[in-house]
Amino acid sequence: MGDDNTVRIGLLGCIRFASKFVRTVTQSSNAVIIAISDPSIETVNTFAAANNLSPETVLVYGSYEELLNDPRVDAVYLTMPVTQRAKWAVTAAEKKKHLLVEKPPAQNAAEIDKIVEACESNGVQFMDGTIWLHHKRTVKIRETMFDSGLLGDVRHMYSTMTTLVPEQVLERLTKEAMGLAGAIGELGWYPIGAALWAMSYQMPVSVKALPSSVATNSVGTILSCSASLQFGSTATATAIVHCSFLSQLSTDLAISGSKGSTHMNDYVIPYKEDTAWFEYTSGAKFAEMHIGWNMMPERVTVDCSGTEESQEATMLREFVRLVQGIKRGDSEADPRWQEISKKTQLVVDAVKKSVDIGCEVVYL
Amino acid sequence: MGDDNTVRIGLLGCIRFASKFVRTVTQSSNAVIIAISDPSIETVNTFAAANNLSPETVLVYGSYEELLNDPRVDAVYLTMPVTQRAKWAVTAAEKKKHLLVEKPPAQNAAEIDKIVEACESNGVQFMDGTIWLHHKRTVKIRETMFDSGLLGDVRHMYSTMTTLVPEQVLERLTKEAMGLAGAIGELGWYPIGAALWAMSYQMPVSVKALPSSVATNSVGTILSCSASLQFGSTATATAIVHCSFLSQLSTDLAISGSKGSTHMNDYVIPYKEDTAWFEYTSGAKFAEMHIGWNMMPERVTVDCSGTEESQEATMLREFVRLVQGIKRGDSEADPRWQEISKKTQLVVDAVKKSVDIGCEVVYL
Repeated sequence: MGDDNTVRIGLLGCIRFASKFVRTVTQSSNAVIIAISDPSIETVNTFAAANNLSPETVLVYGSYEELLNDPRVDAVYLTMPVTQRAKWAVTAAEKKKHLLVEKPPAQNAAEIDKIVEACESNGVQFMDGTIWLHHKRTVKIRETMFDSGLLGDVRHMYSTMTTLVPEQVLERLTKEAMGLAGAIGELGWYPIGAALWAMSYQMPVSVKALPSSVATNSVGTILSCSASLQFGSTATATAIVHCSFLSQLSTDLAISGSKGSTHMNDYVIPYKEDTAWFEYTSGAKFAEMHIGWNMMPERVTVDCSGTEESQEATMLREFVRLVQGIKRGDSEADPRWQEISKKTQLVVDAVKKSVDIGCEVVYL
Repeated sequence: MGDDNTVRIGLLGCIRFASKFVRTVTQSSNAVIIAISDPSIETVNTFAAANNLSPETVLVYGSYEELLNDPRVDAVYLTMPVTQRAKWAVTAAEKKKHLLVEKPPAQNAAEIDKIVEACESNGVQFMDGTIWLHHKRTVKIRETMFDSGLLGDVRHMYSTMTTLVPEQVLERLTKEAMGLAGAIGELGWYPIGAALWAMSYQMPVSVKALPSSVATNSVGTILSCSASLQFGSTATATAIVHCSFLSQLSTDLAISGSKGSTHMNDYVIPYKEDTAWFEYTSGAKFAEMHIGWNMMPERVTVDCSGTEESQEATMLREFVRLVQGIKRGDSEADPRWQEISKKTQLVVDAVKKSVDIGCEVVYL
């Protein structure tokens, strides 16, 4: 189970998607999965078998409570449906477990407040599972485009997260499964978060869902939505965010600035795990006589071929570093990650509210 | 001056930008510049010298009227300010000249109607100078993504045309120089046209300017604007178009469909004249365990290295082909190009109207 500095993690929820996290922890040198749980013991056993989690080293629980009562567990990874995440996050924090919560971590900002309050009262670290923020490429773009001044002031952004859900499944996307914000929470979380990231977490002054873009299924779950976000009191910077279960996979991020622009079409999960790139221009103009451009886009490639260099690994490393600091008594919980979650959720909520009130402007 | 099948072209307006057209005609085997004109004879002479147009072969006129009265001229290329284009296009058509008019060809759809009427009454061909529609790449995307079914139904589009104008020049962008629609006409013409092109010229049912995106200078010229276009009565397909004089050069076109998506960041003028590409995916999903995608984007490259393969050359070839057909008496003017111009202008007008009425929805 590793030495005292090792972070011992338990899973709350055994959805298939959690396999990736297990793989990442298994490859990590300072964290270990010591317990897994799900309300269905059958699900837990199937997950354990599928992920080579031996009963000799990994405890198997048929309820979240049992796992949370295990004092050996330092931290938990929550993947249950979004409608239950806040409740279990609060309970886990009260049991002094550090929290890594799948995104979106809650159904609205009020729920995030409760989680944050519980974390602060109990001195535990919070982080949501927005993996791309931890990718080496994300850090590299920040340096290359923003810190250097190559992009200038952000003027316009476009970001999407769309993924095609088969027609017969669309009707099964209930609010119980998806949360109240539907696609805006499940998918819109990414483009909204990307716009905030590009604005260094300056909040928009207003948001507005675009009426032409909103589609719902027969039970009222939002399946598709675009929205505009306005930063600053005039048209200083705007973002268009788009999320949909009706289009093929797209994860576009285009940022257009006063001096340069940058593009990625795979910002959420890069095409390949071992490498990722972005393209940019700065100072671009049409060439003399407008027969082309004065430059080609520059491609910056980031190598992630080491086993601990994937975006999951860098996220885990950051989470483990923070938890270790608290365990050793060297540091307190870092509020940065909960602030990012809260701001992202506030914008998700505002877009959802705009949809609810007929796509009117919502001020933040 | 070429044989009888050669199309003899005159320039109405000698702006610097027209050099590209002169170069293209010079490289062409079935068209020739025989006359140039501008209200300022000094401008004409400077242009002639700068473009190696010898007074021995090219007639030089200090007024548009003189050129239009020259019976040797078959066709004219109009580049004067947008506010004067409709007037001179009508006059030229009445003088039986075929028309290639720089985009936008007029200030509003009513003006286009007048041009079209004059062309039809006089049996002359009309085409506006939206060059990218003639690029070999544009044809290739149509085949690859649409005709083949790889894209499926269009769900969402994003298209931009932005170009940075220095701050001290922004105030000089008057309505007299720019036309009433400002950036929407001058720049928005492209993304609006791109959305229509992707929809095979199905018209949107409504458009809406996004309030957060609209910026004007002190004389009320629109400098920046985003708008959403809705095609079909539900959220079947939507487009976001963005134009601005406040951001660095960007010419993005992203089309997201039910089965695939395609991207270009240089659709208006390719980075390089001799080659151009687009990227697409079809059937893309996240790979097992979400550690990447199930495919990489496919890049399709189009070779344009021949002197008659640039988008200007292919546009000219199409224009000359149509004019030659009419000259020979084999065919009548092709209404396709005026229909495209008219539809594009109708959407430009609708976006402008939306801005004027406080960014309310405008139905078409």
